[in-house]
Amino acid sequence: MPETTLSSPLEETVVIVGVGLIGGSLAAAVKNRKLARRVIGVGRNSSRIQAARDAGLIDEWATDVGAVVEQADLMVFCTPVDQVSLGVQLAVRSWCAAQANSPSDRDLLLTDAGSVKQPICSDLAGIRNFVGSHPIAGSHRQGFEAADPNLFEGRTCVLTPLATASETHIQRLERFWQAVGMKTIRTSPAAHDEALAMTSHLPHVVAAALAATLSEQNRSLTGSGFRDTTRIAAGDADLWTGILMSNSEQIIKGIDDVMRNLTAFRQALSTSNSTAIRELLVQGQLSRTALDEIHRHVD
Amino acid sequence: MPETTLSSPLEETVVIVGVGLIGGSLAAAVKNRKLARRVIGVGRNSSRIQAARDAGLIDEWATDVGAVVEQADLMVFCTPVDQVSLGVQLAVRSWCAAQANSPSDRDLLLTDAGSVKQPICSDLAGIRNFVGSHPIAGSHRQGFEAADPNLFEGRTCVLTPLATASETHIQRLERFWQAVGMKTIRTSPAAHDEALAMTSHLPHVVAAALAATLSEQNRSLTGSGFRDTTRIAAGDADLWTGILMSNSEQIIKGIDDVMRNLTAFRQALSTSNSTAIRELLVQGQLSRTALDEIHRHVD
Repeated sequence: MPETTLSSPLEETVVIVGVGLIGGSLAAAVKNRKLARRVIGVGRNSSRIQAARDAGLIDEWATDVGAVVEQADLMVFCTPVDQVSLGVQLAVRSWCAAQANSPSDRDLLLTDAGSVKQPICSDLAGIRNFVGSHPIAGSHRQGFEAADPNLFEGRTCVLTPLATASETHIQRLERFWQAVGMKTIRTSPAAHDEALAMTSHLPHVVAAALAATLSEQNRSLTGSGFRDTTRIAAGDADLWTGILMSNSEQIIKGIDDVMRNLTAFRQALSTSNSTAIRELLVQGQLSRTALDEIHRHVD
Repeated sequence: MPETTLSSPLEETVVIVGVGLIGGSLAAAVKNRKLARRVIGVGRNSSRIQAARDAGLIDEWATDVGAVVEQADLMVFCTPVDQVSLGVQLAVRSWCAAQANSPSDRDLLLTDAGSVKQPICSDLAGIRNFVGSHPIAGSHRQGFEAADPNLFEGRTCVLTPLATASETHIQRLERFWQAVGMKTIRTSPAAHDEALAMTSHLPHVVAAALAATLSEQNRSLTGSGFRDTTRIAAGDADLWTGILMSNSEQIIKGIDDVMRNLTAFRQALSTSNSTAIRELLVQGQLSRTALDEIHRHVD
């Protein structure tokens, strides 16, 4: 990444709104790679956001976006998906008010890290300096205490610019995500949500549905297989309720696909059809093995 | 484990039939902990079983159980579940023939490592010196090259003795599994299969059903969540066809449980019922978090 070797950083001031696992990891990555002169963190809970500052993840903190938007060059909203639109709108309103008082030549660029893009990009279609992002990286762990500056390394970030976005803004945002270690791709919000329903939201639903079948007395008889298959079910329920609600139509299609495959297994088992069982297992195996090839470089 | 510090080992000669991931790991554990004077490996493919000997996992090798059964004190069948019964029957026949020629005072004990117990224990009900075992440990990796002497450490081994088994044999077998690092429990073959359908066989079906939904163009948009949830789908399809066929009735019940939960998610999503979605997510989360508590000591 040539950007990281420049003597002047990519951005003067990066404001990260929501300093949890993703926001905290992003702050750590920006600071570690010296991508900004200053990182400001915004969080509603003042003792939590001060603790993130004390942990060295951010340089300064605020509890209110309006208080820091004037100083921002790049603002990244790492809040839950159902809070992004309102947050961006409030920030832009504060920025416009500040500009009316004392105009600056900053080219404010806003983005987010939400895993559903259609509702957000549709809500914010009127804001030309907002471009949606989804860095596909995460963990079932929560909070800035689990922040990892290398969380984004080798992963993919999807940008979902609308037709109104400027190419300058899009390229600037691509450089930013690439500088924290990511590959970037561009797609429409709808295509993003259709794909992520299958690759991220559906696995969460399936893991939760499977985890809930386990009885208390069977817990000690689980091995690594059950634990891996259900690991993501430990994720934050409120956060995931918002994600699933925002992309419900696509996720329902995915549930139907899984139920179709489970029904085929059920049919093959109830007729003791070993050829059909093997064929179903081989389909899953081929798909999973191909995935390992894709991700070989990051594991 | 006081056994490992005795100057005389637990068993004189251990014969391991099937030196793949499980058999190879068991051989490595027995040798590392000096639990036997000699470990003989049996495999159908002579170049593979010689390679396992050359890798230091076993002391001697054979391609035929009949050729080594006379020398065995403990025989552990680590073959696929649908090959255990026949293997044990052949071994016992060879042993009886040998005893008729030259009687020995060895107290031959036979067991297996199969993850389905009812068919095996029912087939072998007439063999009093067979006691079924299931060491709950494994990996999606295959072959003795992936053998790990610590694979069994902290895990649970289920013994499924029939009423005809002697307490001396059962306790001897418990000491053996404990000496490779496992906790042991006893249960009936039926209770074992009912539990393992839910804790091991169902997750495999679910992982395969989910993996098969992934399209080629979506592969690059998967994160660690999809990969963890489908990891076990990469397992050997032939091996798992045998396991699923052997326990189909119980697995069908498990598939119905998962489909009931998926249907509830579908209903909650299609009616945009966020309270119901959250409740379903919390059920999965609580179940999964409780599991982490159980396994904390081995992770």
